[in-house]
Amino acid sequence: MKHVVSQHVRFGDVDGAGIVYYPRFFNYFHVAFEEFFGRVAGVPYDQMLYKERVGFPTVHVETDFGVPLRHGDAIDVEMTVSRIGKSSFVSTYRVLRGGKLCARAEITTATVNLDRMEAIPIPDRYRAALEKIREDTSS
Amino acid sequence: MKHVVSQHVRFGDVDGAGIVYYPRFFNYFHVAFEEFFGRVAGVPYDQMLYKERVGFPTVHVETDFGVPLRHGDAIDVEMTVSRIGKSSFVSTYRVLRGGKLCARAEITTATVNLDRMEAIPIPDRYRAALEKIREDTSS
Amino acid sequence: MKHVVSQHVRFGDVDGAGIVYYPRFFNYFHVAFEEFFGRVAGVPYDQMLYKERVGFPTVHVETDFGVPLRHGDAIDVEMTVSRIGKSSFVSTYRVLRGGKLCARAEITTATVNLDRMEAIPIPDRYRAALEKIREDTSS
Amino acid sequence: MKHVVSQHVRFGDVDGAGIVYYPRFFNYFHVAFEEFFGRVAGVPYDQMLYKERVGFPTVHVETDFGVPLRHGDAIDVEMTVSRIGKSSFVSTYRVLRGGKLCARAEITTATVNLDRMEAIPIPDRYRAALEKIREDTSS
Repeated sequence: MKHVVSQHVRFGDVDGAGIVYYPRFFNYFHVAFEEFFGRVAGVPYDQMLYKERVGFPTVHVETDFGVPLRHGDAIDVEMTVSRIGKSSFVSTYRVLRGGKLCARAEITTATVNLDRMEAIPIPDRYRAALEKIREDTSS
Repeated sequence: MKHVVSQHVRFGDVDGAGIVYYPRFFNYFHVAFEEFFGRVAGVPYDQMLYKERVGFPTVHVETDFGVPLRHGDAIDVEMTVSRIGKSSFVSTYRVLRGGKLCARAEITTATVNLDRMEAIPIPDRYRAALEKIREDTSS
Repeated sequence: MKHVVSQHVRFGDVDGAGIVYYPRFFNYFHVAFEEFFGRVAGVPYDQMLYKERVGFPTVHVETDFGVPLRHGDAIDVEMTVSRIGKSSFVSTYRVLRGGKLCARAEITTATVNLDRMEAIPIPDRYRAALEKIREDTSS
Repeated sequence: MKHVVSQHVRFGDVDGAGIVYYPRFFNYFHVAFEEFFGRVAGVPYDQMLYKERVGFPTVHVETDFGVPLRHGDAIDVEMTVSRIGKSSFVSTYRVLRGGKLCARAEITTATVNLDRMEAIPIPDRYRAALEKIREDTSS
């Protein structure tokens, strides 16, 4: 199963060179991440945070930017998971425009209790959801 | 007394038309507002929020945009106060580039206790600081 | 006819007080504005800008913020038009959460040729689209 | 020589968990990058872009986030360079709060002519400036 969120490059997303200001790619990734919880895990991201007090801080990011994006571009952001540990996991985000890969990120995420800001095991429900979008083979 | 904060238009502040994306003017205003607390009131904005639990939500905004700004522009954001009520006040922000007025905003701000999100009187210390940057005459 | 764009308050949209950082309301308004061109006028906003070189700089903003929004809130942003002049118009944005009005803005927009940055009459196609979402009575 | 830019975590920089929304770290890095041109190379970033038509798109990013930052934190962003090639270079950004390392990024940057969006050799002036902040040893 793939988790894909379609987005648009907005008027305010570009920089002085007329292409997407690269920090905003991380917004696109994060929107896909937020939607994952409601759509795949069945718990909206905000409920998980504020009721269950489960948080997922980003601890490591590796990103390749290949094709610059411009205002008006329609993109698909695909999220898959390549590794699931006890309390952290690695997810991959691919940004596609017209089916062409424009950027790709691997993001390592920890799991914490937000009140204590301490690592906790990934709760079963979210672990099962992460398994659903696990890649068959590494890429 | 005038409270002025010098800022730069950053590479990521512009839009697809090559000028500052207008929502980002409100960031420039807010940076001046944040600095007001540490510099004029003697209490850093974050301390006031998190220790005193005093917050200043924005309730009304009126803004005129006259001259478009571009990446690299050096601007001065002047903050003055035109009206101080029991629990709200009106502040004015002028964005100047090379002394020329480019944008002007009047912003009405309430005062609340952040735990209860209820209106409270402006605490004396902040009222005194607002008086320091009060305009002599309306403009 | 009403033009309505449903949006979500994102994880990164809030501020240190836990509510939407008010400058980001203007992003919500602008997303509705951008979508208006593709959906109502039949010309995507980016095509109008980059092919026709027609731009719509914001010249005046009046906004009331009534109800604070929080991460996870589902909102509808309604755009209507209250006044259409020769080369400028006034549009109104209402932010509703569960049908309840949370914020309301009136935004005056000029029409320019982006190459010369000079005022031009509103092109007929866009004027007709603005008429489609004109309010019956002022509110 | 070190290139260091002091910054503040702003009210609008945090997320629903009350810590800096991680995409905004890339703004902090980019502000240091922009300042490098004016301060170390002697050519303001905007002049280089718009007059010389030299651009520096980001092609690869690796970042470790160690310590979460909060609104009000005063940070130093240190920029050094670890590798300088013919038309690309690798710079390192360290975010320090009270001398403690909170985040660290390695960013690979290409050099292009902005009109043709084609790779060009790093111009001598900027190569010399990059050499000035080159690390003595890899870290």
